Amino acid sequence: MKYKKYTNNEKYAYSFGVYPTIELIKNKSSEIKEILLSEKGNTNEGIKIILDLCSKNKISYRYSEKEISKLSDKDNILSIGIFNKFSSSLNRNKNHIILVSPMDAGNLGTIIRTMQGFDQSQLAIIKPAVDIFNPKVIRASMGSVFSIGFEHFDSIVDYRKKFSSHNMILFMTDGHKNIKDVNKKTLYSLVFGNESRGLSNDYKEVGESVFISSSRNIDSLNLSIAAGIAMYEFYKPD
Amino acid sequence: MKYKKYTNNEKYAYSFGVYPTIELIKNKSSEIKEILLSEKGNTNEGIKIILDLCSKNKISYRYSEKEISKLSDKDNILSIGIFNKFSSSLNRNKNHIILVSPMDAGNLGTIIRTMQGFDQSQLAIIKPAVDIFNPKVIRASMGSVFSIGFEHFDSIVDYRKKFSSHNMILFMTDGHKNIKDVNKKTLYSLVFGNESRGLSNDYKEVGESVFISSSRNIDSLNLSIAAGIAMYEFYKPD
Repeated sequence: MKYKKYTNNEKYAYSFGVYPTIELIKNKSSEIKEILLSEKGNTNEGIKIILDLCSKNKISYRYSEKEISKLSDKDNILSIGIFNKFSSSLNRNKNHIILVSPMDAGNLGTIIRTMQGFDQSQLAIIKPAVDIFNPKVIRASMGSVFSIGFEHFDSIVDYRKKFSSHNMILFMTDGHKNIKDVNKKTLYSLVFGNESRGLSNDYKEVGESVFISSSRNIDSLNLSIAAGIAMYEFYKPD
Repeated sequence: MKYKKYTNNEKYAYSFGVYPTIELIKNKSSEIKEILLSEKGNTNEGIKIILDLCSKNKISYRYSEKEISKLSDKDNILSIGIFNKFSSSLNRNKNHIILVSPMDAGNLGTIIRTMQGFDQSQLAIIKPAVDIFNPKVIRASMGSVFSIGFEHFDSIVDYRKKFSSHNMILFMTDGHKNIKDVNKKTLYSLVFGNESRGLSNDYKEVGESVFISSSRNIDSLNLSIAAGIAMYEFYKPD
């Protein structure tokens, strides 16, 4: 067996499934080691697209049922893309999304998918955090992870050293301004805390704290829901 | 061993963890068979609340490390509530959320949690669907499943036979009206399709189709994100 099952220590990672693999080839073909295919997918439209993209981009592929089921733990995966983990950096002229220590792979992937839905393309992650190339992140993002810019920072202070001109908008359950009343015209960074702890009070020093109006029946909204509503509020259709 | 691991065929189900178990006791104490506790939780504040609620509500509890780890597959669970699955029915004077064949337990639980956050308390589910008492639903809902009203229907037609006066608002990627422009003053039902298929075109006959404005970069938003944004738009703070 040429590859080992995913661990966050390896230099390579996997896109499981047809749709994320197509996104991988379209956006990061230079990072691909090879594509594995299942013979079960021979009549699948998505597999035809993959074969076509492989030929156009000169990417090698091979058929191996056995490796696919070993690497993915599933029987219904028709394709896996094996790629070198890559780094990326943020565009300072665009708005940013900042996640402070996201730990749930499903949340991170869903947020990345939602970013694409609301024209947000730049993600800062404050460490520690779940691996952005964890297969569950890639799957929940439906491959959107391959088309955003992202960058990791040790702290919000380090982020601010590099990006000092963004208006910092901090989502906190006790924020002092309603998200509806925030100035949405300047360059901004939307900042969200960890799933269980949120943002600590120290964060109030780096920007404007805002809240999403909700009932007192719950302590806080789920992280991906809060981020989705925030991006929706800030979205400006063309 | 008195209980079997969760399957959706049993008449009873489980709340795993301290927080969901507290919600279970507070809202559905009459359905509880018993509470299992771990001795590891003796100094945990939540366990103290559970013991207090058990005594007030005359609910039996016992300590069994072994059963907890067998039933939950996890080492860090301090409490399990074992309860009879129960049915419920919708209040016709309140607004409804309708999910058509939700299949992902995490999505269903997150939506139920978000309902509580935006004062929505009535959930109609069109079958087939994931079991509302699946432990993953209960966990993602953080126990909110115990405080909503819910009812299952074989079809949207059956739902309409029972509830004919709600204004049906159908979320579709090709909906004809922006959610922002919808009349939010009449009694309404917000209807969301299945994770992968959405709502079929037939649904347009039962109500008004609406969309959430988003970019053309993605086919559709994740179900729980779309439902979250919709409930946020319809939320009227006191």
